[in-house]
Amino acid sequence: MVSRIKRLLIGRPMKSTEIEGEKLSKLKALAVLSSDALSSVAYGTEQILLVLMTAGFAALWYSIPISVAVLGLLLILILSYRQTIYAYPTGGGAYIVAKDNLGVSTGLLAGGSLLVDYILTVAVSSSAGTEAITSAFPSLHDHRVLIAVLMILFLTIMNLRGITETASVLALPVYLFVISIFVLIVSGIIKYATGGVHAEVHEMSSAVSNISLFLLLKAFSSGCSALTGVEAVSNAIPNFKKPAERNAAATLLMMGTILGVMFIGISLLAYWYGIAPNSHETVVSQIAETTFGRGAIYYFIQGVTALILFLAANTAYSAFPLLAFMLAKDKYMPNMFMVRGDRLGFSNGIIILGVLSALLVTVFHGNTENLIPLYAVGVFIPFTLSQLGMMVRWINQKPKGWLFRFMINTIGMLTTLSITLIFIFTKFSQVWMVFIFLPIVILMFFRINRHYCNIADQLRINIEQDKPVIKGSTIVVPVAGITRVVMHSLSYAKSLTDNVVAVYVGFDDESIERMEKKWEEWNPGVRLITLRSSYRSVIRPLMKFIETVEWKTSETDHITILIPQFITKHWWHYLLHNQTSILLRAFLITQKDVVIATVPYHLKR
Amino acid sequence: MVSRIKRLLIGRPMKSTEIEGEKLSKLKALAVLSSDALSSVAYGTEQILLVLMTAGFAALWYSIPISVAVLGLLLILILSYRQTIYAYPTGGGAYIVAKDNLGVSTGLLAGGSLLVDYILTVAVSSSAGTEAITSAFPSLHDHRVLIAVLMILFLTIMNLRGITETASVLALPVYLFVISIFVLIVSGIIKYATGGVHAEVHEMSSAVSNISLFLLLKAFSSGCSALTGVEAVSNAIPNFKKPAERNAAATLLMMGTILGVMFIGISLLAYWYGIAPNSHETVVSQIAETTFGRGAIYYFIQGVTALILFLAANTAYSAFPLLAFMLAKDKYMPNMFMVRGDRLGFSNGIIILGVLSALLVTVFHGNTENLIPLYAVGVFIPFTLSQLGMMVRWINQKPKGWLFRFMINTIGMLTTLSITLIFIFTKFSQVWMVFIFLPIVILMFFRINRHYCNIADQLRINIEQDKPVIKGSTIVVPVAGITRVVMHSLSYAKSLTDNVVAVYVGFDDESIERMEKKWEEWNPGVRLITLRSSYRSVIRPLMKFIETVEWKTSETDHITILIPQFITKHWWHYLLHNQTSILLRAFLITQKDVVIATVPYHLKR
Repeated sequence: MVSRIKRLLIGRPMKSTEIEGEKLSKLKALAVLSSDALSSVAYGTEQILLVLMTAGFAALWYSIPISVAVLGLLLILILSYRQTIYAYPTGGGAYIVAKDNLGVSTGLLAGGSLLVDYILTVAVSSSAGTEAITSAFPSLHDHRVLIAVLMILFLTIMNLRGITETASVLALPVYLFVISIFVLIVSGIIKYATGGVHAEVHEMSSAVSNISLFLLLKAFSSGCSALTGVEAVSNAIPNFKKPAERNAAATLLMMGTILGVMFIGISLLAYWYGIAPNSHETVVSQIAETTFGRGAIYYFIQGVTALILFLAANTAYSAFPLLAFMLAKDKYMPNMFMVRGDRLGFSNGIIILGVLSALLVTVFHGNTENLIPLYAVGVFIPFTLSQLGMMVRWINQKPKGWLFRFMINTIGMLTTLSITLIFIFTKFSQVWMVFIFLPIVILMFFRINRHYCNIADQLRINIEQDKPVIKGSTIVVPVAGITRVVMHSLSYAKSLTDNVVAVYVGFDDESIERMEKKWEEWNPGVRLITLRSSYRSVIRPLMKFIETVEWKTSETDHITILIPQFITKHWWHYLLHNQTSILLRAFLITQKDVVIATVPYHLKR
Repeated sequence: MVSRIKRLLIGRPMKSTEIEGEKLSKLKALAVLSSDALSSVAYGTEQILLVLMTAGFAALWYSIPISVAVLGLLLILILSYRQTIYAYPTGGGAYIVAKDNLGVSTGLLAGGSLLVDYILTVAVSSSAGTEAITSAFPSLHDHRVLIAVLMILFLTIMNLRGITETASVLALPVYLFVISIFVLIVSGIIKYATGGVHAEVHEMSSAVSNISLFLLLKAFSSGCSALTGVEAVSNAIPNFKKPAERNAAATLLMMGTILGVMFIGISLLAYWYGIAPNSHETVVSQIAETTFGRGAIYYFIQGVTALILFLAANTAYSAFPLLAFMLAKDKYMPNMFMVRGDRLGFSNGIIILGVLSALLVTVFHGNTENLIPLYAVGVFIPFTLSQLGMMVRWINQKPKGWLFRFMINTIGMLTTLSITLIFIFTKFSQVWMVFIFLPIVILMFFRINRHYCNIADQLRINIEQDKPVIKGSTIVVPVAGITRVVMHSLSYAKSLTDNVVAVYVGFDDESIERMEKKWEEWNPGVRLITLRSSYRSVIRPLMKFIETVEWKTSETDHITILIPQFITKHWWHYLLHNQTSILLRAFLITQKDVVIATVPYHLKR
């Protein structure tokens, strides 16, 4: 039943060799990997306006220079990351680059913040997508947590089905989004140019002069949230079709160009239309409404925006499991993240990502405004570390023309570092959680690593010297009566060794005597030892007896406890049996160094 | 940790031989066993008045003749049950008597309705106790479900500690209740006689003449709820000190007398004071308030009433586990009800009773009015069956003077049968659930019995012919690499037999080749078989391989699958290991007829 539902949702299992077919072409990669970056347009401008609004309407003018600055930053990031792609053709995520050049601890810092960040990507994108929907249909505003969680569930299932299939689903909405935003921008500019908009455009006024540098920086850093997602391409190079580096670099450039144009376009329109952010309608929704009215085109734009935001979360679904896989391979995360599922995706990573981000959405009530700063810090820390790693790499390797490349990465590093610091400085009240969460994650990495190393030490053998040693064998069979199961168990034990002893635990002298007599009659060729339990516990006297056996024979013999166990036909039949055998096994396995053999007896009725 | 909390709540474990010290003296038995019956006084009169009220104030006059009729019924029941006690000195519950004389099915009907009834006893008594509290403190009215459930929890814990200790706790409140109700009745009568009460006593009026027989019968059957609990003594004879029958009979008589006097006293006072039932204050509370005012004595009476009602539930805590034990011994209920816990009580019965009754209270919102009819039907069905059983017994055995005894039981049977029919006839809308629930319970009894009989058939051996047979042995050891655990497992396997084969499941040719090469280098003296898994599943290829081994050797050999298993030091370390071994074991044990031996490897760090 469970497996049938699984088949239906996930699809048939795939062979390991089918993996090459799952690789991405440039256009598909643009769909899968850039939706995160492109969708940032849906909230980037709004984040700037939200901050500027606190200084009054007139301050909204500043959104234009700030947007230009963000654009400049985008250029720097694209150039920096282009270098990373060529330097790390097998996947140059911040984790790899930082670990390679700055040491393990720094690598883990980058990896940890990226992991946290991917979870936030899903949470932010699904929340923002829900806001696009509730802007169009205000009556859904109260159900936004539910909508966001359902979308996360849907994405999780899609990703468990495998990457290519997801890409097919994704491609169309991404292209539609790009087209419709371009249409919106062009139509908006035409409408504005022809004087079709009668908005109160706020000219520079005296009220604006007192705007503080602090506020401007805060608005700038908020705008930088539009840059989140740019790193996705460089992390996912192994998913590209060959030649992977060139395809990845080309995808990155395409993405950067589209993103830049859309972002500046939206910012300009917002300014020209004199739009102020409000908590029930997004800026993009307001622009679309002003341009086209609440008609078919408006709803189409909102729908596509919601779609791409939901699908932006998908970037994290490609990136998180891959990063978790790399961390697990380096023994900083549990092994389970290395297992490919039936459909060749890293199922455990996908599921964990879905669960954690759904949790985050629920805790933050689907409120993007509080999630985005956390998200941006999570992005800019690994940005910075990755650039720093590249700098060290150029200095160490000094290839032809390294100085120019070094300078690009230096500029990149300094810019992202500044933004990180501005974030921390201007929005500490919203991002402090990162400074609690990150150290915990990194500590966990180290603890996990130590555990695996410890185990490897304990398990390692010298194949020259350590060989299997043959010893004697003693088998203890706890019996509760004389039944077919007991006979079966004794047959088994006697087939293996002559040192077999049956143990019976009785609660009173009468039952012990009766058992001894019956055993004698039966005479199965095995010695019976009877124990009396004053406290009506079977386990405790047995454990004591096994200790005695251990003390006597563990030097010369392997000790086996042979436990007969009923396997009932229906699970609820288990309620009808005191599963002493299960309890006994649980006690033995955790506390004694003996082999526990279970003789199953499959009940037929 | 868990076991320390258990110790604190339940007390130290007790030896089986300590059981004699747990037996009850007459006075203690009165406390433990009669609280159910005596506490019925707290709601018996009220149930009559509730029905009569529907015909108007004037109809309340009928409460007096109805109470007298109930009193007559009590006399009949006491005489009947006295005979049962002497006939069944080892415990003459309705289950035993009916099963003995009327056959198994009838016995199970009686047993089933009693089990249901005991659950209802706890639910009704704790709800009624809560009502006594909320009558005194109306502000608690909204929390009555919580209060009732907490009391059930408290009782469950007390009973897990053991019977005698419970008795000590119980004795005082029962005596205090009896004394205070007598004081209340005497004071009330004096007050009424001296004209201290100015109630509108309703004389026979024309309005009453149209009261229907249906209503009178309904009121009468409602009043019979005051008789619930009378059977407790005859069920619990084995708990009495010797001579058990005489002590039990004496206790029964004491109980009957006290109950009768209290019931008729309360009914009289309620009539004289002109008290009408209302949903926020009980009748006893109204009588106490009228007699003493809301002073110390009033609160004392309410407190003691609440206490005895809570403790009435305790009767069921003695009776339910004992009946469950008897049913389990006859293989109609799961074995687990036969196990005596650390403190010699039947812990499983006690816990199940607590859980089910708490559930019932919650579902019925602690509303006694709806629970009591169910409860009464549950009592009068086994009452009737028990009397019928006694009748058959007298006819079959014909001891000296049997005719007189037969007549007593016949009268008893006819009376209780009539009341059962009246209940069904007048309150069908409230008791129909019994006719769904009882058949289910009885069906379950039979299903359980069939299961146990089936198993016994499958397990039975002929000790003359069936002896252990020695066969060969093949051991299969799944290995994932060359480690200390594998070496340990191979040592063990080789010590038992020469037919040992190691199996390795690889996901690609490369890993398989590497493993084969390393195995050759190591040369542990065991053949390695490698399997290739295209679907990255370890379990499926292993299962197939085991099937092949089974097919080849199961005729001549016992097959053992030796599974190495890490035992980590902390439970959360399990998250760090893909527990393929646990999964494999689960698959094997349910699906294959092979012995599964677990070689634990206790990780030290």
